[in-house]
Amino acid sequence: MTDNARSRKQAAIIGGGVIGGGWAARFLLHGWDVIAFDPHPDAGERIAEILANARLSLPALADVPMPAEGEVTLVRTIAEAVSTADWIQESVPEDLALKHAVLAEIQEHAPDAAIIGSSTSGFKPSELQRGAKLPGQILVAHPFNPVYLLPLVELVASPACSARTSGRAGDTLASIGMHALVVRNEIDAHLADRLMESVWREALWLVRDDVATTAEIDNSIRYGFGLRWAQMGLFETFRLAGGEEGMAHFMRQFGPALHWPWSRLTDVPELNEKLVQKIAEQSDAQSGQYSLRELERIRDRNLVGILRTLKERDWGAGTILNAHDRNLQTRVRAPAVADSSAPLRLLDLSVLPAWIDYNGHMTEYRYVQVFSDSCEALLRRVGMHDDYVAAGNSWYTAETHTQFFDEAGVDAPIYTTVQILAADSKRLHVFYRMHAGADDRLLATLEAMYLHVNIESGRVVAAGAAAAEQLLSVAAAHAALQKPEAAGRTVGQRT
Amino acid sequence: MTDNARSRKQAAIIGGGVIGGGWAARFLLHGWDVIAFDPHPDAGERIAEILANARLSLPALADVPMPAEGEVTLVRTIAEAVSTADWIQESVPEDLALKHAVLAEIQEHAPDAAIIGSSTSGFKPSELQRGAKLPGQILVAHPFNPVYLLPLVELVASPACSARTSGRAGDTLASIGMHALVVRNEIDAHLADRLMESVWREALWLVRDDVATTAEIDNSIRYGFGLRWAQMGLFETFRLAGGEEGMAHFMRQFGPALHWPWSRLTDVPELNEKLVQKIAEQSDAQSGQYSLRELERIRDRNLVGILRTLKERDWGAGTILNAHDRNLQTRVRAPAVADSSAPLRLLDLSVLPAWIDYNGHMTEYRYVQVFSDSCEALLRRVGMHDDYVAAGNSWYTAETHTQFFDEAGVDAPIYTTVQILAADSKRLHVFYRMHAGADDRLLATLEAMYLHVNIESGRVVAAGAAAAEQLLSVAAAHAALQKPEAAGRTVGQRT
Repeated sequence: MTDNARSRKQAAIIGGGVIGGGWAARFLLHGWDVIAFDPHPDAGERIAEILANARLSLPALADVPMPAEGEVTLVRTIAEAVSTADWIQESVPEDLALKHAVLAEIQEHAPDAAIIGSSTSGFKPSELQRGAKLPGQILVAHPFNPVYLLPLVELVASPACSARTSGRAGDTLASIGMHALVVRNEIDAHLADRLMESVWREALWLVRDDVATTAEIDNSIRYGFGLRWAQMGLFETFRLAGGEEGMAHFMRQFGPALHWPWSRLTDVPELNEKLVQKIAEQSDAQSGQYSLRELERIRDRNLVGILRTLKERDWGAGTILNAHDRNLQTRVRAPAVADSSAPLRLLDLSVLPAWIDYNGHMTEYRYVQVFSDSCEALLRRVGMHDDYVAAGNSWYTAETHTQFFDEAGVDAPIYTTVQILAADSKRLHVFYRMHAGADDRLLATLEAMYLHVNIESGRVVAAGAAAAEQLLSVAAAHAALQKPEAAGRTVGQRT
Repeated sequence: MTDNARSRKQAAIIGGGVIGGGWAARFLLHGWDVIAFDPHPDAGERIAEILANARLSLPALADVPMPAEGEVTLVRTIAEAVSTADWIQESVPEDLALKHAVLAEIQEHAPDAAIIGSSTSGFKPSELQRGAKLPGQILVAHPFNPVYLLPLVELVASPACSARTSGRAGDTLASIGMHALVVRNEIDAHLADRLMESVWREALWLVRDDVATTAEIDNSIRYGFGLRWAQMGLFETFRLAGGEEGMAHFMRQFGPALHWPWSRLTDVPELNEKLVQKIAEQSDAQSGQYSLRELERIRDRNLVGILRTLKERDWGAGTILNAHDRNLQTRVRAPAVADSSAPLRLLDLSVLPAWIDYNGHMTEYRYVQVFSDSCEALLRRVGMHDDYVAAGNSWYTAETHTQFFDEAGVDAPIYTTVQILAADSKRLHVFYRMHAGADDRLLATLEAMYLHVNIESGRVVAAGAAAAEQLLSVAAAHAALQKPEAAGRTVGQRT
């Protein structure tokens, strides 16, 4: 971080293609300012298009509010881009001489404290650092397209990098929702691209020799092992293939196949123009009915769904998303101080993309989720949360009644209030309202009865007088408020 | 199909390991009788365990009723297994001499009209057919573990197989929910295993040379490109990496890398006992906290979620599931929805890890989510979903009342039922119950009032008589049921 008074961190994006643009989107949507440099005349437009796709998808992964978006600026020189940057990401083409020239220009103008990440697919950090002014400032931070959705970054340091620099890099990547996989040994193409390159070579042979088309090969992946690899990798998957006898059994069983002609081993296909054209034509036949942007949006929609699935199961990439939510939550502002002479305002938030149903507006159970979160906010406000729960006490929901009055679309600001209808040491009877932030329109109400429970026994027990003091004082103040008409209503009762 | 009077088709499973057991489960759950042969003393128990896992997962992929389960029998000879079979699936170890002996014994006793599929990972059909009595009866039908969930089967014929036989094989596989990817050219290891073998070889080098552990390699897959390959394959994914310039640009850009040392090309690692042990130990460190069955259930739960996500998006493997639903719908008689003897059972599922709150059990709004999903299931059952919504009509929730009776922990099986209290063309008044699957304990109830709405105008409008017919007939049948005590209850009302 720099020493000046900027409230937002600054990322310099050097190279604004698919990868650089993806980095820009991820930083921006996590509240960073982005300064981008790319000499291509369409660079600004391209980054804007990638950002539009990212806005449709990345926020749908979060169940807590995202930071306010930063600002993006396109500049004409590397010097302008990097001079006050906290993080500099180089994503220029895979050409070592070019990367050396760009990195030299970056280091000429960048703060020494900034981290310089390279998106290189194949070069080792020590190769990139050769001849550099400050070699230890440069690391490989290799992301995966789409950078704004996939959490993986291969973080590779050379002996010239300090552990502190690597640690800071990992922390920064985590703060924008990524997982830094520390590659402990420098090696060409790091880890993932070595695996992909192997598949790529084999697949090129299959197309070149007319064994299968690009579409057939893709289906052989996405209908089968690709589904496995989204959640477990190669080894964990094969562990299961071994059955009761386990991993060693599997390996001994399939070990001989290593020497069978199950893939082309000793040669790489010549990538001549004929093969390039053949693949381009087959790819057009397979995917040409979609524009690039359409296909990207389809991909992103699928990835959001798969990632949210894993998030609900707290597995694989989903565990990274859950950790990131907890991280974001700690940055959320504490609510304003209570005023007990009116219904108490509890939550201010906006409708998240993931809350929208096929009718195009907030789905039923998300209303209840917001009311449920409002209950947490109320209990936190009166000091009956966290420590109180840890000590074995809690309010359990016995019964609720919800009325739905109006719709809320994506990103609509909404807020909730609570009115305490009655409270004693065992029972808490409350009435929540949800309003549209724009015009205070009433969207929904929820009436709830909570019981004070000892968590271990599951029994209703009285709250201690000291613990309940704040709650009962709000309840006493609210006794003067008019009882809501809808309270005590039954489902289907005519108004 | 055979000519006799059996009402159910019969599959012979020769070899009851992970793959054979998976085939058995898929056939059984699609209404086939299964006769299994495996000389291993634990074969019966193993198949039963795989079947138990399959019962927890495969039906969760379908949104229409599955056929009634067939019967499974374990026999002592191949002759008994195959003599009246419609489909014979050979899944014995990858040893050509053994496969020849088993196939000869199968053909000695099997009906000529039966199809013999081999699960071989690597042998070509013409190799398997060598010396066979009826070569054209034998095809490669290579599935992917878990066979009961993953739709892919590589179907490979030799010139000895008639097009009619291949076509029948494809139809049969489709009828049990699989996608036959016709591999048009015989080649060692078919398509997918050639790709996987390439990755496997490269990954073994990485572990052998201590570049990375099995866990690191797995994370390099499942946090990154594995998420892409679950929905698009290699070529469609790379098409997007090329950006505006497209596939040919991408290939020319990364073409030179084919000749760079991005993977080990010219050699395969020696799979000696040292390497086997190293990988087995790393795999234990990575996954050893789970038993085999636990890890399988985690995998299956993830796959069900990913497959359902793709199904909702009608993409990739999801399109296969949707086609299979339509196929099942025409084959399986719909259950009598107008059964007046009991409330209608809607959903069977288990509590997901992400649904657990800090009190250690299913959090409030997830109950409502399950009830909300139950509403979708009800509307689907009475033909007022999907096409109906696409045509601009929908039922909106006006009001709900929920009572919470008991807790549900992670992985607890639960199910929901619905009782229609009243329905006309504009109003639908229903009562849902959620029960624990283990002991039918009542967990919660939700009473709801829905209004029939034109989506565009947002106004309440009457449903057409034809559209509402099934719904009104269920309502008429449910009129005979006793009204639930909790219906019409207000929040906080003393019982």
